[in-house]
Amino acid sequence: MNPLLTIEACEGQARCGRLRTAHGELETPAFMPVGTYGTVKAMTPEELQGLGAQIILGNTFHLLLRPGPRVIAAHGGLHGFMHWQGPILTDSGGFQVFSLKSLRKLTEEGVRFRSPVDGSEVRLTPEDSMDMQLTLRSDIAMALDDCTEHPATEAQARASMERSMRWAERSYRHYYAGTPPGGLFGIVQGGMHVNLRLASLETLLRLEWPGLAVGGLAVGESEEERLAVLESLVPHMPADRPRYLMGVGRPEDIVAAVLRGIDMFDCVMPTRHARNGHLFTAAGVINIRNSIHQEDLGPVDATCACYTCRNYSRAYLRHLDRCNEILGARLNTIHNLHFYLDLMRAMRAAIRAGTLSTWAAQFLRSRRGTDAVA
Amino acid sequence: MNPLLTIEACEGQARCGRLRTAHGELETPAFMPVGTYGTVKAMTPEELQGLGAQIILGNTFHLLLRPGPRVIAAHGGLHGFMHWQGPILTDSGGFQVFSLKSLRKLTEEGVRFRSPVDGSEVRLTPEDSMDMQLTLRSDIAMALDDCTEHPATEAQARASMERSMRWAERSYRHYYAGTPPGGLFGIVQGGMHVNLRLASLETLLRLEWPGLAVGGLAVGESEEERLAVLESLVPHMPADRPRYLMGVGRPEDIVAAVLRGIDMFDCVMPTRHARNGHLFTAAGVINIRNSIHQEDLGPVDATCACYTCRNYSRAYLRHLDRCNEILGARLNTIHNLHFYLDLMRAMRAAIRAGTLSTWAAQFLRSRRGTDAVA
Repeated sequence: MNPLLTIEACEGQARCGRLRTAHGELETPAFMPVGTYGTVKAMTPEELQGLGAQIILGNTFHLLLRPGPRVIAAHGGLHGFMHWQGPILTDSGGFQVFSLKSLRKLTEEGVRFRSPVDGSEVRLTPEDSMDMQLTLRSDIAMALDDCTEHPATEAQARASMERSMRWAERSYRHYYAGTPPGGLFGIVQGGMHVNLRLASLETLLRLEWPGLAVGGLAVGESEEERLAVLESLVPHMPADRPRYLMGVGRPEDIVAAVLRGIDMFDCVMPTRHARNGHLFTAAGVINIRNSIHQEDLGPVDATCACYTCRNYSRAYLRHLDRCNEILGARLNTIHNLHFYLDLMRAMRAAIRAGTLSTWAAQFLRSRRGTDAVA
Repeated sequence: MNPLLTIEACEGQARCGRLRTAHGELETPAFMPVGTYGTVKAMTPEELQGLGAQIILGNTFHLLLRPGPRVIAAHGGLHGFMHWQGPILTDSGGFQVFSLKSLRKLTEEGVRFRSPVDGSEVRLTPEDSMDMQLTLRSDIAMALDDCTEHPATEAQARASMERSMRWAERSYRHYYAGTPPGGLFGIVQGGMHVNLRLASLETLLRLEWPGLAVGGLAVGESEEERLAVLESLVPHMPADRPRYLMGVGRPEDIVAAVLRGIDMFDCVMPTRHARNGHLFTAAGVINIRNSIHQEDLGPVDATCACYTCRNYSRAYLRHLDRCNEILGARLNTIHNLHFYLDLMRAMRAAIRAGTLSTWAAQFLRSRRGTDAVA
């Protein structure tokens, strides 16, 4: 099976292991920095590697519009185009299309929408999404799903989930019709309705997915709703296959999901927050734009070993941000990605040591109410 | 004398040597990347070093406004603030103040202007400029000069030059009143009038400057005017001290000036051009935004050994530029700075080998009419 998961340690529901792909192995639980347009914003591939990123995510929707499939195909896929030699997961484009709302038209065939780039009409069916992801030659592709709105009644969530299941099968048939370069993950939908989530999983399991994702979360639900879905769903997901929670999230959300058996994460938060001057620290998020940092000679986080914290003061980072300097976005991104990737390293080590639950309790306690500290 | 120049090879008027400063040596002829706000835009100090930059320029005017002297002083100077451990030259701020035009008021005392950042009134006298440069603790500081407008009548140019000479002496007295961390360069003015240029030099030479600059060029004059000034002036400048041509310029301008005995250069062109998608190549400047690069799998310059050319296609760089990606500005800047710094390496080697004139003739021929090729 490609990719292939090997579980090496467990603690409660949490697991630690390795996922083997055509472009190398990654350790799980894993965080995937988001490389929307064929670049993790502000970073080179070598810098990402240096930070410990073992897999990145590419956005099919964005790459379909710019530069489009022809240019990527000419480079032999996304790896060659962007000079990243490690594993790549691509999403299906569905999530972005659905967030276009009024600009899209949904039918059983798929979605049609106006390109936000040039206004032209673009079609995205399950087959189109697979073709684009095959062109990208990602190591892990995602089935096209119908992203259930939130909140949704049970009837709405059911109809949406059932369409997702039909699209999942079409995705699967199309992706595996040839000799794909990677593996395709199915996506469990069903909104906040546990019965629908379980029905979705049961439907998906009629096919041999090398991994499964939980979609339709991080859409505005409460933490309780999200954790309730995970707690009822994840124990039923195949233990021998990777479980990917899409689009989540804050560090504390990731920790909570690892405790509940999730292996893979992606989120724009570390990179986007960085460009907005929001920096993660052991004591919570600081806003580097705040004037209290104006003459602060100390690093962002005295406990952090990243390049930014080893070499630059808060005052300098605040200055770069005020002057809209590219280096500011870079140094902030390095710091935030280091924070996330270090968090994953710490959790993997804790699972291996059997200390995750104590580690997590302490981590979550230290971060309570620390959002936007200063 | 600090900094101290050692000339190691000459060919015609051209010289190759080493300039020793408090933060290490640099080889001449040298190009100084411009770090306006305490950062060479888009680059880390380590990347600059990797490209072979041996000295950078900081802008006193910009740093005076943001973050201001207090913050820099708290970091012990500009080196500590920006994490660059090599030599730094700072300009006086004069050039930027004069380009404010209607927002400034010029008197014998100095200049007063409205801060473009917050509208407050700021004063810049020779003493103020020295104080700020002493706070920056640059290895090479520049005297405050009155930047002669172009074109200027002889009377205008004389009055302006004479004020510059009075300010130069005030700069010198103030800078050397204590124990400065570096050395102060005087600036020859006089517009396009050779007699005024020689008079300016004669006046300056009454004081012991460790180096001299040619100011008031790169202000819109023709190439002939600029070279005429250099050819009449440079042979009279002390051979044992570094000669710095301020704000010049295009690669061909730098080569022409090295042939005429100039040792040091600064220009925003490689970094600014990079952010606008204009990339230097052996065959001329290309515009990466041009649609002919859309599917071009080749590097910017097949003869170039920079990180960008070794790893990325023109198509990818064009894509990054179109998507306004930070990585695009970075990769372009790496390439352009490599081009400039490599040019300086090539000229230093040619002077040592006694082949500069043939090298330069070929270089200038290959670039004739190559601006904005594609």
